Amino acid sequence: MRIKNKLFEIQQINNTRLCVGLDTELTKLPIHYDQSPEALLTFNKSIIEATKDLVCAYKINFAFYEQYGVDGMHVLRETLKSIPSNVITIADAKRGDIGNTSRAYAISIFEEMKFDSITVNPYMGKDSVEPFLQYEDKIIFILALTSNPGSFDFQRLVSDGKPLYQHVIETSQKWNTNSELGYVVGATHPNELKEIRTYSPNSLMLIPGIGTQGGDATATMEANGNSPAIVNVSRGILYASNGADFAEKARLKAEFYQKEIGM
Amino acid sequence: MRIKNKLFEIQQINNTRLCVGLDTELTKLPIHYDQSPEALLTFNKSIIEATKDLVCAYKINFAFYEQYGVDGMHVLRETLKSIPSNVITIADAKRGDIGNTSRAYAISIFEEMKFDSITVNPYMGKDSVEPFLQYEDKIIFILALTSNPGSFDFQRLVSDGKPLYQHVIETSQKWNTNSELGYVVGATHPNELKEIRTYSPNSLMLIPGIGTQGGDATATMEANGNSPAIVNVSRGILYASNGADFAEKARLKAEFYQKEIGM
Repeated sequence: MRIKNKLFEIQQINNTRLCVGLDTELTKLPIHYDQSPEALLTFNKSIIEATKDLVCAYKINFAFYEQYGVDGMHVLRETLKSIPSNVITIADAKRGDIGNTSRAYAISIFEEMKFDSITVNPYMGKDSVEPFLQYEDKIIFILALTSNPGSFDFQRLVSDGKPLYQHVIETSQKWNTNSELGYVVGATHPNELKEIRTYSPNSLMLIPGIGTQGGDATATMEANGNSPAIVNVSRGILYASNGADFAEKARLKAEFYQKEIGM
Repeated sequence: MRIKNKLFEIQQINNTRLCVGLDTELTKLPIHYDQSPEALLTFNKSIIEATKDLVCAYKINFAFYEQYGVDGMHVLRETLKSIPSNVITIADAKRGDIGNTSRAYAISIFEEMKFDSITVNPYMGKDSVEPFLQYEDKIIFILALTSNPGSFDFQRLVSDGKPLYQHVIETSQKWNTNSELGYVVGATHPNELKEIRTYSPNSLMLIPGIGTQGGDATATMEANGNSPAIVNVSRGILYASNGADFAEKARLKAEFYQKEIGM
């Protein structure tokens, strides 16, 4: 599959499993920036320029752009254009709806915006995810065990001796797909990641939660072993400094995480 | 709570629990329409004009607008403006993410676009829903048991003697809220709706799935009893005709569903 090759090639070339999450917000921009949507774009371009040889992917979190309305969506599209074509682009949109609606979301993300990958929510089941899986050469990351405190509310409920997130992983692996099917498992759950790797050793994992959210890179990568993974850091890199040296400091942080995560 | 009064007032004035879902798509427009984003807006305005005295709410499904990119989001915003101010507006966006990200989605839906209500996905738990609940005078509909076939995949998994959707309803009722907390329960599950009404008689339900999806209005309303509800029909009204009489036929269908659903 071409998308898998694209990922493995950029991971080899840049010697990295690091993904930078572009969770950009006006209030967190460097202090010399003005508070305009254009400033968000300038900031993103600087971060991409400073880190593009240290990452295998950029993850664009839709909420942060949608909050600025039409201007924000323009910044999202322009940011996407400035990502090098050999780096994986992830639409962190966590979409999911009934079949005919999910199809429209898939058109939005894969055809209209041409992302390589999306995060989707499994709560609504098979027909809510299938329209994404029907595309060729995309990566679909289904939420399994997320990095946030709320992951303890429902995702760990045990049914037939297995937590909900395990049902999500095992059931979805039976669904037909033309694409690469992966899962989101937070770095805040290394023990569970280790256990997931016993029954799903070859799935591509998108692992967020390192840095500000408290996930530990060493414990996470030990739990993951040599299985395929993309490891995301957002705020820990973007906001390494709010001074004129923000891009330089972001690069240093990206180098730090690139090494911590390893290959 | 003002939002509850707003809902009950419009339900009384228009003698209806019907909501029309604006799932508008270019390929389904009347045959004399051209295939432009502007045509989507003209169509929506005609549907709203033809049905506004028969409904208590309009539900705008984001996927259908996002698929047309920035133009589609412009149509969504202009459609929203053309909804009478005493009718409830529902952002059917099914959002949900970790806390700081959900906060940005809430800003987008409630502050930037000023919707009265949103649908949210509970999979990520409390901190993914809380930023929406913190707003005053909004209605937050959490997905419980959805109308689609995929609702059988995970939502009915039994843990501690209760299906997942019951855990979602019972757990979320313990969360702090400044807003009205409601649930999405599909009309395709009347038996389960009846059972949900035994432990959650006073929650506001958003009930989709009547019409094209196969839900039966009479069985649904019998199961719901006199509990508060908004009942959505989308395609069954929007696409009642693809001729020049589409608005007139949509009105007739809306009158039909208004009566079938009753008060």
